Amino acid sequence: MEFELRILGSSSATPSTNRHHTAQVLTLGNQYHLIDCGEGTQMQLMQYKIKYQRICNIYISHLHGDHYFGLAGLLSTMHLQGRHTPLHLFGPPGLSEILSLQFRYSGTNLCYKLIFHELDTACFTQIFEDEEITVHTIPMEHRIPCCGFLFREKPKPYPLIKEKLPDFLTPPQLVRLKWGEDIRDAQGNVLVYHQEVTMPPKRSRSYAYCSDSRYRPELLPYLRHVDLLYHEATFTDEYRERAYYTFHSTARQAAELAAAAEVRRLLLGHFSVRYKDLTPLLEEAMEVFPATNLAIEGDVFSIQE
Amino acid sequence: MEFELRILGSSSATPSTNRHHTAQVLTLGNQYHLIDCGEGTQMQLMQYKIKYQRICNIYISHLHGDHYFGLAGLLSTMHLQGRHTPLHLFGPPGLSEILSLQFRYSGTNLCYKLIFHELDTACFTQIFEDEEITVHTIPMEHRIPCCGFLFREKPKPYPLIKEKLPDFLTPPQLVRLKWGEDIRDAQGNVLVYHQEVTMPPKRSRSYAYCSDSRYRPELLPYLRHVDLLYHEATFTDEYRERAYYTFHSTARQAAELAAAAEVRRLLLGHFSVRYKDLTPLLEEAMEVFPATNLAIEGDVFSIQE
Repeated sequence: MEFELRILGSSSATPSTNRHHTAQVLTLGNQYHLIDCGEGTQMQLMQYKIKYQRICNIYISHLHGDHYFGLAGLLSTMHLQGRHTPLHLFGPPGLSEILSLQFRYSGTNLCYKLIFHELDTACFTQIFEDEEITVHTIPMEHRIPCCGFLFREKPKPYPLIKEKLPDFLTPPQLVRLKWGEDIRDAQGNVLVYHQEVTMPPKRSRSYAYCSDSRYRPELLPYLRHVDLLYHEATFTDEYRERAYYTFHSTARQAAELAAAAEVRRLLLGHFSVRYKDLTPLLEEAMEVFPATNLAIEGDVFSIQE
Repeated sequence: MEFELRILGSSSATPSTNRHHTAQVLTLGNQYHLIDCGEGTQMQLMQYKIKYQRICNIYISHLHGDHYFGLAGLLSTMHLQGRHTPLHLFGPPGLSEILSLQFRYSGTNLCYKLIFHELDTACFTQIFEDEEITVHTIPMEHRIPCCGFLFREKPKPYPLIKEKLPDFLTPPQLVRLKWGEDIRDAQGNVLVYHQEVTMPPKRSRSYAYCSDSRYRPELLPYLRHVDLLYHEATFTDEYRERAYYTFHSTARQAAELAAAAEVRRLLLGHFSVRYKDLTPLLEEAMEVFPATNLAIEGDVFSIQE
C-alpha cells in the first residue's frame, strides 16, 4: 500500500507570496486523506494534479482560519464538479455550523453526502478505521480547541512459508498462524509454533500530524516510534517565550520531542512569516534530531514498507 | 486623481491553475476599494504588491463562495498585521452573521473597527460618498441576492480663467462661477456668464461592475456612458440557454448592453472553466462592441481624466 505525504502549505497565520496556508494530503493506498485545508488548498491540489474527488476524509485540526478557510471552497467545487461519493469531515465543534450557514446563504445543496464527525479535541480517541488503517486524535494545547491526528496501519499478517507448513493444518489454523498464534492440540500442547512456519510481518507504518500547539512532552506516548512526525515549529528557540504565550512551539522543541519519542523522521512546518530563509529552523532542529526535514510546498515524503 | 482598476481574479465558480476567483482593486486617489474577494485574494494582493492596509472599503456582490471566500482570511491577516484604520464592508444580508461566527470560533477580536453596511441588492441606491466619489448598488438578477456597484466621480469644478475675471468679483462669487453659476445683480441681470470666464470641467469618470447576472437590458439607465463597464461573460452565445437558466450572461449579451449604453470600454470576466482559450469570448463580444477587453489576472485599466 502506498503511504505518502504531500505538503500543500506550511505557512503560519500570515501567508507570503511563496508559502501557502496549512494543508497536506496523505495518500494511503488509492485514497486521499486531506489534513487541514487553509485558504487556496483547492488551487494547490490542482497545482499538483491531485484529483480531489478521490479525497475520502478531511481532517480539520482547529478553527483558526489558516487551517480551514479553504474548506468551504473545496467542498463547493467538489459539488460543482458533480461528486457523488460521500465525504467524511472530521473537525472541532463549530465547523459544521459555519459550513451550514455558508451553504444556506449561497443556496447550495451539496449533491454528495457530507458526513460530519465532531471531534473531542481534548482526548486521544480513535475517530476512523477501515481495513487497513486507524486514525486517532492527538490533543494539542492551543488558544482554541485543537487536535492533531495519528494515522497508523493496522498490524499486518505473518506471511506463511508454504514449504514449511505441515499437511494436517486446516484453513482456520492457517489463518491463526498468519495472525501470530501457535497451533495446539486439545490438551494444549503446541503442534506448530507460528515462528517456525511464518516470516516476520511487514512493519505497520504511522504518521503523526501535530498541528498548532505549545510544546507538550506529555504527547510522547502517542508519538513513540512513529515513522514520520510533523510538528509545528513556528519560531526558532530564541523566541521560546513568544512561542509559549502564543501557544506555539520552536524548532528545537519539536526536535526534542522527536528525539524523545524515537521517531524515524521529523518534519517541521507552520513557519512564521518572519523567516524568509528557513535554514535557521532546520539547523536548530538538526542539532537535536538530525533526521529532520522542512515541510515545503510540493514536497513528498514516502514511507516504505 | 488616479482612477485605475486592477484585476486579481476572473474565473467563475470552479477555479483553474492560472485563473483565480473574482476580485478587483479599484484605486481612487490614494485609496483602494476592493470589489469582491474570492478565495486567495490576499495572496493575489501580495503577488501584485498591493498594500492591503490601504484598502478603505470592501464590496461583496453576493454570497456565492467564488466572490467572498477570501474575505475572512484577508480580514484576519489585516488584524494579525495590526491594522488600526477602520474598514467599511458592504455586503448582502448574511455576510456579517457568517463572519461573526467564524471570528467567534477562532477567538478573534479584530484590532480595527469593521463597519458593516448591509446592502439592499434589489435597488439602485447610493451606499457610499466622500469628497470625490459616490458608490451605488446596481441590482443584478441572480440565483441569490446580488448587486453590482457603480463608482462615479462627483462633478468637477469649472477651472477659472484668471485673466478673464473682472476685478469686482468677491470670493463667494468666484466659488459660484467655479460650480457653473452665472453672477447676477440684485435685479437678476447677468453680470458675468460663467462660460466666459471658465474652462469646461474635467470629465467625471465612472466604473460599473456588473457581477453575476442574467442579461438585464433594464440596467441600461445605470450604465449609460460609463467609462469602463465590467460585465460577467460566463459563456459564449452558443450556451445562451444555459446562461439563462444558471442566471449568467454570454459575451455577446455583455457586448449588446455595452453598445446600447454607449460605454467607452467593456471588460469581460467570470469565465467558465470550459474556456481554456478565452479568444472565442473576446471575438464574440468585439463583433458587437469592438472596445472590449478580457479581465485577466494582473491586468490594469486606467481611466484618464
